Amino acid sequence: MAAAAETAVTRAMKALLDRDDPLATRIKEEDSVLDQFEIQIDDLSVDLLTKAPLASDLRLITVAMKISHDLERVGDEATTIARRALALNAEPQLKPFVDIPRMADLALRMLKDAMLSFVNHDAKRALSVIPRDKEVDALNKQVHRELAGLMMANPDNITRSLHLIVVSKSLERIADHATNIAEEVVYLCEAKDVRHDPAIKRGTAG
Amino acid sequence: MAAAAETAVTRAMKALLDRDDPLATRIKEEDSVLDQFEIQIDDLSVDLLTKAPLASDLRLITVAMKISHDLERVGDEATTIARRALALNAEPQLKPFVDIPRMADLALRMLKDAMLSFVNHDAKRALSVIPRDKEVDALNKQVHRELAGLMMANPDNITRSLHLIVVSKSLERIADHATNIAEEVVYLCEAKDVRHDPAIKRGTAG
Repeated sequence: MAAAAETAVTRAMKALLDRDDPLATRIKEEDSVLDQFEIQIDDLSVDLLTKAPLASDLRLITVAMKISHDLERVGDEATTIARRALALNAEPQLKPFVDIPRMADLALRMLKDAMLSFVNHDAKRALSVIPRDKEVDALNKQVHRELAGLMMANPDNITRSLHLIVVSKSLERIADHATNIAEEVVYLCEAKDVRHDPAIKRGTAG
Repeated sequence: MAAAAETAVTRAMKALLDRDDPLATRIKEEDSVLDQFEIQIDDLSVDLLTKAPLASDLRLITVAMKISHDLERVGDEATTIARRALALNAEPQLKPFVDIPRMADLALRMLKDAMLSFVNHDAKRALSVIPRDKEVDALNKQVHRELAGLMMANPDNITRSLHLIVVSKSLERIADHATNIAEEVVYLCEAKDVRHDPAIKRGTAG
């Protein structure tokens, strides 16, 4: 499921950067795969819960359910990016892409690391993901400011800038989901709840 | 927890409509209450799962965990609205509010009905919530179009329009969370997964 979510994001970015309409359309169609995964994982989880004897198993199962929900949402964000790519591809390119591909890179790497930390029960790697969310947030704000400036400079830029603001926000949300997953893994490994812990978000904890 | 989430949204809207800065600041500060609720409900759920003997109990517990996650996110959206209210209150009002209060009204009523359906195990009421999401989506698109028009008409409108676009999107997401909760309740009552079912989303099912 994580591989399918990562592929969807990678393809959505490719559809945007390479102005590839058929690819963008395919992403929208394939989103139902992730929806089905989530339903299957939920059913399997409830089934396993009826048989799970140990508290540690229960924690693993509930965390798996939460992670599948995050991955399904990552797929939704990929669909949003693909939709905006289709709208943007119909018009001349506003400007060369710089920060948006960087954001996509960071967000995808966070997602990969978060999933690796889950598979390997690697709390240290999971903890390394969490502070990186701030970088993506900062890039999103920078992109937002830059596009607001382009809109003010010329009303012809407004529609395209709005599409790009949505893309940037989607990438920021993908990084949020990766952070959620990493926080769940830390909780799983250390039975310690790091969600909403400011020291860990800053990367100064431990 | 649901009451706290609803209060946060109601207050965020009041801070926006009445240009009330102290209220907006308070919402941002009180968001940690919802964060703490989510952690407590998760801990309690895992604890109950170790003792739950029946499949129907397990389902109730996992659904409760998911609902608490949705409510925590509703609180995050309220904080977003409060932040944008602070930014908007520092400038002259762009235009009288029409569609945004209507969206808030619809979204809050969806949230209340979804939570009532959970408390009363009322699948019928839960099913009535799901198609209402489309109304809020349509209003969000209309607000988006209108604000894009205002931006094109005058660059001085751009910053304020962008804040209002974010507010409108937050309200649309609150309605999404209410829809998620309603879908979980249907699943709980009927052990039937309605998520990603197009007929139910259209309101033509059953």
